[in-house]
Amino acid sequence: MRPRTHTCGELNVNDINKDVCLHGWVKSWRDHGGLIFIDLRDRYGVTQIVFNPKINAAVYEQARNLRTEFVILIAGVVNSRPSGMVNKNLSTGEIEVAAQTLEILNAAKTPPFEISDDIEVNEELKLQYRYLDLRRSKLQSNLIFRGRLYKVVRDYLAAQNFLEIETPYLMKSTPEGARDFLVPSRNYKGKFYALPQSPQTYKQILMVAGFDRYFQIVKCFRDEDLRKDRQPEFTQIDIEMSFVAESDVMLVAENLVRRIYTELLKQELTEKPFPVITYDQALLEYGSDKPDLRFELKIQNLTGIFKQTDFKPLAAAVKNPDGIVAGIGVADSGQLSRKKIDQYTDYVKSLGAGGLIWLRVHANDLEGSTVKFLKIEEKNALIKTFSRTPEGIIFILAGAYEQTLLTMGELRLRLGNDLELFDRNQDRFLWVVEFPMLEFEENEKRWMARHHPFTSPQPTDLDKLETAPQKVKARAYDLVMNGTEIAGGSIRIHNIEVQKRVFRMLKISDREAEQKFGFLLNALQYGAPPHGGIAFGFDRLVMLLTRSSSLRDVIAFPKTTSALSLMDGAPDIVDEVQLKELGLKLLDKD
Amino acid sequence: MRPRTHTCGELNVNDINKDVCLHGWVKSWRDHGGLIFIDLRDRYGVTQIVFNPKINAAVYEQARNLRTEFVILIAGVVNSRPSGMVNKNLSTGEIEVAAQTLEILNAAKTPPFEISDDIEVNEELKLQYRYLDLRRSKLQSNLIFRGRLYKVVRDYLAAQNFLEIETPYLMKSTPEGARDFLVPSRNYKGKFYALPQSPQTYKQILMVAGFDRYFQIVKCFRDEDLRKDRQPEFTQIDIEMSFVAESDVMLVAENLVRRIYTELLKQELTEKPFPVITYDQALLEYGSDKPDLRFELKIQNLTGIFKQTDFKPLAAAVKNPDGIVAGIGVADSGQLSRKKIDQYTDYVKSLGAGGLIWLRVHANDLEGSTVKFLKIEEKNALIKTFSRTPEGIIFILAGAYEQTLLTMGELRLRLGNDLELFDRNQDRFLWVVEFPMLEFEENEKRWMARHHPFTSPQPTDLDKLETAPQKVKARAYDLVMNGTEIAGGSIRIHNIEVQKRVFRMLKISDREAEQKFGFLLNALQYGAPPHGGIAFGFDRLVMLLTRSSSLRDVIAFPKTTSALSLMDGAPDIVDEVQLKELGLKLLDKD
Repeated sequence: MRPRTHTCGELNVNDINKDVCLHGWVKSWRDHGGLIFIDLRDRYGVTQIVFNPKINAAVYEQARNLRTEFVILIAGVVNSRPSGMVNKNLSTGEIEVAAQTLEILNAAKTPPFEISDDIEVNEELKLQYRYLDLRRSKLQSNLIFRGRLYKVVRDYLAAQNFLEIETPYLMKSTPEGARDFLVPSRNYKGKFYALPQSPQTYKQILMVAGFDRYFQIVKCFRDEDLRKDRQPEFTQIDIEMSFVAESDVMLVAENLVRRIYTELLKQELTEKPFPVITYDQALLEYGSDKPDLRFELKIQNLTGIFKQTDFKPLAAAVKNPDGIVAGIGVADSGQLSRKKIDQYTDYVKSLGAGGLIWLRVHANDLEGSTVKFLKIEEKNALIKTFSRTPEGIIFILAGAYEQTLLTMGELRLRLGNDLELFDRNQDRFLWVVEFPMLEFEENEKRWMARHHPFTSPQPTDLDKLETAPQKVKARAYDLVMNGTEIAGGSIRIHNIEVQKRVFRMLKISDREAEQKFGFLLNALQYGAPPHGGIAFGFDRLVMLLTRSSSLRDVIAFPKTTSALSLMDGAPDIVDEVQLKELGLKLLDKD
Repeated sequence: MRPRTHTCGELNVNDINKDVCLHGWVKSWRDHGGLIFIDLRDRYGVTQIVFNPKINAAVYEQARNLRTEFVILIAGVVNSRPSGMVNKNLSTGEIEVAAQTLEILNAAKTPPFEISDDIEVNEELKLQYRYLDLRRSKLQSNLIFRGRLYKVVRDYLAAQNFLEIETPYLMKSTPEGARDFLVPSRNYKGKFYALPQSPQTYKQILMVAGFDRYFQIVKCFRDEDLRKDRQPEFTQIDIEMSFVAESDVMLVAENLVRRIYTELLKQELTEKPFPVITYDQALLEYGSDKPDLRFELKIQNLTGIFKQTDFKPLAAAVKNPDGIVAGIGVADSGQLSRKKIDQYTDYVKSLGAGGLIWLRVHANDLEGSTVKFLKIEEKNALIKTFSRTPEGIIFILAGAYEQTLLTMGELRLRLGNDLELFDRNQDRFLWVVEFPMLEFEENEKRWMARHHPFTSPQPTDLDKLETAPQKVKARAYDLVMNGTEIAGGSIRIHNIEVQKRVFRMLKISDREAEQKFGFLLNALQYGAPPHGGIAFGFDRLVMLLTRSSSLRDVIAFPKTTSALSLMDGAPDIVDEVQLKELGLKLLDKD
């Protein structure tokens, strides 16, 4: 095989009259005025090839047999294109290659779908023929972007003295959190490894071992019932640091994001530093632990206004010490039809709200069917509260504090979308900090760690651990981009006594703690430094940065929502012998 | 916690009189002339701290309670050391810090072994307390080297237009080669994923998808009974390229090695290009498919000399068309005692040889008990053949071709070691090419792929595939460093018909091929470019480059030879519930 002299994205007017050899795929083929033109494609671009019977009649005849996706080698001379045929959108658009030689390196059957970005093809068919789908320019550019992102991340962290260290994939199963994927051991029949849900314990051990700053871009695994945008195996940027407080870790993560924007998107993130708000504030103002700051639209706490209300739907919430009346006001010049508002009502009801109260603000007055239930002071206070939207609609929800705010948060997102309140090309980041450390698990009737059981409580909350667990805040932080959590982390517990107290709090007995996490508890006693870290969801980050709509568009070989690989048919049955070697048998189906 | 101003490897005479704050581990502690000295250690180095009761009596008293491996924070002033106490071997050896503040960040129990490079500690204890073992400077520097190696490799390959792409860990089990680790599927009970033994099929698919140049530093898994220097999970540098021949891949790999030497070892590899020899030549001249070129000592084919011999041990080999008489001659000035030679005899017998013939060359004549069986022409021819070692010993083995040469190869390595024929600081690389494509598997009575079933045969050998499989050479190449294979690869089959022929040759039925590798066979029909690649054993490479004696010294969390993780106790039993969810039960032990 004659070696190529150039790629298909390389030739331009400077190469005219050169003898070249190109390899690539036939992207398209056309017979035009006695000449055959093909677009020859590779990862780097597309070059137009022309076959002229006057140059080489045999090669011209051969070219008649070409079909799309054939892999060919051509050699010939670079010519400038006739002026009418110049394509300014293409780096190679001013030249073409007049083929003197053609070699078919491999034929191709007709693809089951066209290799083009604008196609509507059944998702399963695309996954089955992933090697063809991956030829589409959008997927190619996504994976090229992803490749560059690895590099930017690694270069930045290496420059910050972070050391890349690989942690094991065959580890111990510690089902505290999601479900582990298990790997049966052949040497120790009846025993199992687990694939890591994250390298959490190992990275803490690395801090105890004195590595000071660790990172890894690493695959993690969760055997969960998959939602649309989850994958059973996913990639994270995993970071851990010693001798740090929250702000140190947050600074590294924030600067990493800035670096990504300057290096890859050639864009300066102007907001510096990123805003930091507490979980409590995020819930109250945005009804979310991951607020989308691309638009303002803050939730207003109206409880005070309605302290003396006679309006029944509000009165109950006001009297409940854990209740709230929350409102949001949007400017409206007619986009919000009655039908639309009814849809919002249905929506909030589907989320558990009793109903949606709405009032139209117009000419310094309120209109709507509920106005008659409001006192004049209440009306005035509402108009004042929403004075920034003198013409618009006020939506009000009332009920239990957290539930009501979360529902209002969802409504806020709908309104932001429907009213196009933000610029989709303008990314907004923020930090959410001081998360509640624990959440009550109703099924198991016990407190669970919201982040993971190694997360440090706020030192000032330590004495509430046993007495008021719901009030204990964690030294945890999330980085939020456009309303999506892209990274989360915490300062860890480095004190053995605190760790034991937390385990007890989580109803993990001393014996169970020893059995599951004994090595970490042990390590904490041999000189564990204060430490903390963070992990970025790498796949999601690539998805957001490339404006892709699905994780499948940024992963080379993704699985379906039921964790199938449609291309190779995994998972699949295995030999009886293989199972027997592992000391296993299948349960009878019932 | 007061933030550190410097690391423990940073301060020097330029910092004298500065107020500093350091964090670290107490490496050692001594009370000397009313002052307490400690060496404070972190990943970056060691700094001497002095506690003087005249500076702060309370802090001095507190320092008396320090023990090794305590994690502390100290603040104080940088002083120059008294002239007699300067340590020129240490970057911080000219200064010390007079502590004004001391904070114990975490206490430490007395470690079960001393944190020192010169210790002899039970290997199992070290693995159990891996976080302490990892504090030793040798392990720290190995992992730091490893971290830098990732970067050099990635930077080099990225600069060569290689795209990093992640391939799946949960794939289809294709037990052709080593044994797979299996992962039971919960969604599809009775079905299993396998962990990749290598991303071989995926990287080929990526070439079919048009990515042109791919690389990944990736974990791979083999469930084999482990020899001393194997691990169930290991890391490889995985490379694949389209539109290439052997020399293209070899050049990339070779230049990568050169880059590693210049960047990390600050050393220029003078031999350029690396020598290339065929497998046949390697076997004949060095009795090995991975010759150690650090010393010459070539094997001589003596068959021609003994064509007419009467000496029985040789006569049989000469008459056998598949026999050989092979000799090796070493200079000797007395190191090779009779006892040593007897050991060699025992050694070659243990490898299956009938015996070891040896002759002493001295003053242009041969001595030894077998001389009397040799004809004068044979003696003269021997003396001439080994004229480069006029004073020394000639060892001769006779028997079946391959077996005899392999045994001689082992003897050659012993001699090289015993006679110290090479400089351990001088690395030698070579390429071995044109490997036999197939080897006969006696147990299964069938031909197996020596490399893997996707390796292309040499085009000229294609018609021998069915008629003389033993003669078919593969387009495969290994990179050998100091007698160890560090990388291996091949040009792959891109033609569907050739791939099917090879599968049939390997007694993989069409149906089985379809079931196991259908997706690859399918992909080959939709425009597969000619392609090939290579993979480096990353762990082994780090081991050789850091002159470590075990893979365990270059892997953060290694497993034992029985695939146990002694630190966390993996593998371990799991809940009945977990198994039931997977549709599995344990076989009863019998």
